[in-house]
Amino acid sequence: MRAVDIIMKKRAGETLSADEIRFFIDGYVRGEIPDYQVSAFLMAVYFKGMTAQETAMLTRVMLESGEVMDLSGIPGPFVDKHSTGGVGDKISLPLAPIVAACGVKVPMMSGRSLGHTGGTLDKLESIPGYRTSLDLAAFRKGLQEDGFAMTGQTARIVPADKKLYALRDVTGTVESIPLITASILSKKVAEGAESLVFDVKCGSGAFMKTYEDARALAKSLVSTGTEMGKKTIAILTDMSQPLGYKVGNFLEIEETLDCLEGKGPADVMELTYHLGAWMLVLGGICKDLAEGCARCEEAVASGSALDRFYRNVLRQGGNLGELTTRRNIWRSAFVQEITAEASGYIASLDALRIGLASVHLGVGRNRTEDTVSPVAGLVFEKKRGDKVRQGERIALMYGKDEACLEPARSLVLDAIAISSEPPAPSPLIIEEITQ
Amino acid sequence: MRAVDIIMKKRAGETLSADEIRFFIDGYVRGEIPDYQVSAFLMAVYFKGMTAQETAMLTRVMLESGEVMDLSGIPGPFVDKHSTGGVGDKISLPLAPIVAACGVKVPMMSGRSLGHTGGTLDKLESIPGYRTSLDLAAFRKGLQEDGFAMTGQTARIVPADKKLYALRDVTGTVESIPLITASILSKKVAEGAESLVFDVKCGSGAFMKTYEDARALAKSLVSTGTEMGKKTIAILTDMSQPLGYKVGNFLEIEETLDCLEGKGPADVMELTYHLGAWMLVLGGICKDLAEGCARCEEAVASGSALDRFYRNVLRQGGNLGELTTRRNIWRSAFVQEITAEASGYIASLDALRIGLASVHLGVGRNRTEDTVSPVAGLVFEKKRGDKVRQGERIALMYGKDEACLEPARSLVLDAIAISSEPPAPSPLIIEEITQ
Repeated sequence: MRAVDIIMKKRAGETLSADEIRFFIDGYVRGEIPDYQVSAFLMAVYFKGMTAQETAMLTRVMLESGEVMDLSGIPGPFVDKHSTGGVGDKISLPLAPIVAACGVKVPMMSGRSLGHTGGTLDKLESIPGYRTSLDLAAFRKGLQEDGFAMTGQTARIVPADKKLYALRDVTGTVESIPLITASILSKKVAEGAESLVFDVKCGSGAFMKTYEDARALAKSLVSTGTEMGKKTIAILTDMSQPLGYKVGNFLEIEETLDCLEGKGPADVMELTYHLGAWMLVLGGICKDLAEGCARCEEAVASGSALDRFYRNVLRQGGNLGELTTRRNIWRSAFVQEITAEASGYIASLDALRIGLASVHLGVGRNRTEDTVSPVAGLVFEKKRGDKVRQGERIALMYGKDEACLEPARSLVLDAIAISSEPPAPSPLIIEEITQ
Repeated sequence: MRAVDIIMKKRAGETLSADEIRFFIDGYVRGEIPDYQVSAFLMAVYFKGMTAQETAMLTRVMLESGEVMDLSGIPGPFVDKHSTGGVGDKISLPLAPIVAACGVKVPMMSGRSLGHTGGTLDKLESIPGYRTSLDLAAFRKGLQEDGFAMTGQTARIVPADKKLYALRDVTGTVESIPLITASILSKKVAEGAESLVFDVKCGSGAFMKTYEDARALAKSLVSTGTEMGKKTIAILTDMSQPLGYKVGNFLEIEETLDCLEGKGPADVMELTYHLGAWMLVLGGICKDLAEGCARCEEAVASGSALDRFYRNVLRQGGNLGELTTRRNIWRSAFVQEITAEASGYIASLDALRIGLASVHLGVGRNRTEDTVSPVAGLVFEKKRGDKVRQGERIALMYGKDEACLEPARSLVLDAIAISSEPPAPSPLIIEEITQ
């Protein structure tokens, strides 16, 4: 078997055998197949795609390049949720304790912010003392006793993905549905979950900007996940404006607490309950979505979900006293108001520009080595569809320093469109993709 | 400017600017842009193509990566012919002295055999003493005094092509019309010719197997050559069976002498005169093809073409006495007869299989470091359309050793198809592509 023949076979649009995919990816991970053959292969995949079987095989080979989380001995069901990333997307934070309170185990490995999208680990680390890198024993203990645990990926989880992703990033081969699918799924399967709920974002603030692309990724995730033996569903949701009212690290922890107290923003509550209900259904805890939603609401109303969250904070080293004291008070001193430039209705609040502004402010990072600020971010007082008078406050911006405020301001102002008529309502939950 | 943005622009099928192409190729040659970005770029070009302007710019940048042959002070016109390669294709050998005898200067840089196609340099080096690596002074002197000179490419000619070709070879990106065009043209333009005649082969023994592919390459060569400021024409010619009766190194020198004496095989004579006529027309020596053909025939009839050839052999160190003594006698001792397995007409004599057989016999090489045998090869006594009786000799095979004869024999037998009816005649010269 020769790497060049496999490249040419894919170039011709043919279906690769399991052996060919294994030969190519294993050879790459072992350093026997050079970067330059792999990047040509990735570009051929970009143009010619992969079948669900090929994508599943690619996922499997990538998965087997590293360790799989050992959850043996812990009673399930194990269900995880993965979002393709957005702005103000803190759903994982209230979702995991709610679902855990209902009896589903959530083995959650999360990422950091990169580009305009936020990262669950960065948000959690804004809680003083909170540690996001757990060893296997600590992860297992949290999962067993609290029903969920939050950790980052270790270097031993899917090393093939790290190597492939770094190469894709510099060779223009990121935007390929089968490659994205295998990257996401290999890491999710490595966590040990039996069922997977994908929140595939769609809109300016999402990785997939269009409905068509988002739907294609959702279908690929579901068909490949199913091919890998996992119960899988994907929900297409709107990411044309930020989720909730707060975009930031500690700011989103605050909004998480609001949700767990039953008083979170309507969009965050709706999506959290919907995804939670699906997790309970896939986990076999509830028979349908209506029952699932009711159980999630109950977990919030009873305080058991909030209790799970606090237990997790304590277990992972977070200081509950500081969390409580700082809530709604801990803010950057570098602050600026964003006001309406005209009277009318907010027609759009472009998520991409808000996300880019938040990176300027210090919420996110442009390069993996950048540090983030816990107290930077945006607090919106109005969102799409709201009526505003000229000069009325739309948001407060908190920056890591004085200098970042101006460029962020100009992005935020660009993000806001005001019209004389209210915008047509657009659904948050767009479509559900099942096998 | 970033390499990854250029890759993504080409991936999207957009047209690259001159600056982008220069940035990318210069960066690669200087070692600043790594192989893995270049191979992804090449694969994107494979799928998305290039315009004539982009291809011309690529050619120009590649050309400028090295030296251009300095022909200043030598009176022109300078016209060269390039064949895309075939089996038994010795046309350059009689063509250069014929055209030179008519007053056109032919600055010919040739290649070696690789794969199933033969190489002009290997054929010339079968003449005892003949040297094919000339320095610039010797090349200029030959060109000035004999009207042509034969040399190989130095490392200083288009180094970008050497680097790119090596990468294309292992990344499945050889078969791209704009990349092939730039590779061929950059080297031809570096020779200093003002006009170019391309013999684009078509059929099993050619690089381009189908009429469509060959025609696309021919059109690209002509449009890009014209864009580069060269008078350019391409002739599509048949390579479904070998050219002439002899396939080998010294064997093809013998057939060259036959041609220069006016008694070469009909197909070799026809193609040589046709290409020669075009060279005279492009060089401004003759007004049309008929006049060009007549002048070429005259150069042969008068002996002036043969005289030019002998002058070149002497100038480049060849031993004329040995050439004459060995002609039609110098053969490998390892010989085998190929006879007809049935009676009928030879319906086909597959050029690819004959070419592959010749590599086994020692005419060509599989790897650049292999050596070739001067005395190996095939001498056909029948060709397509000829009538044969079962058991009648079709060819003699000469091998570099005993062991190579069997595998070659089986390829040659597979190459021969015999039918009860004579095959439909097929033209040698298929089409002419002018701007």
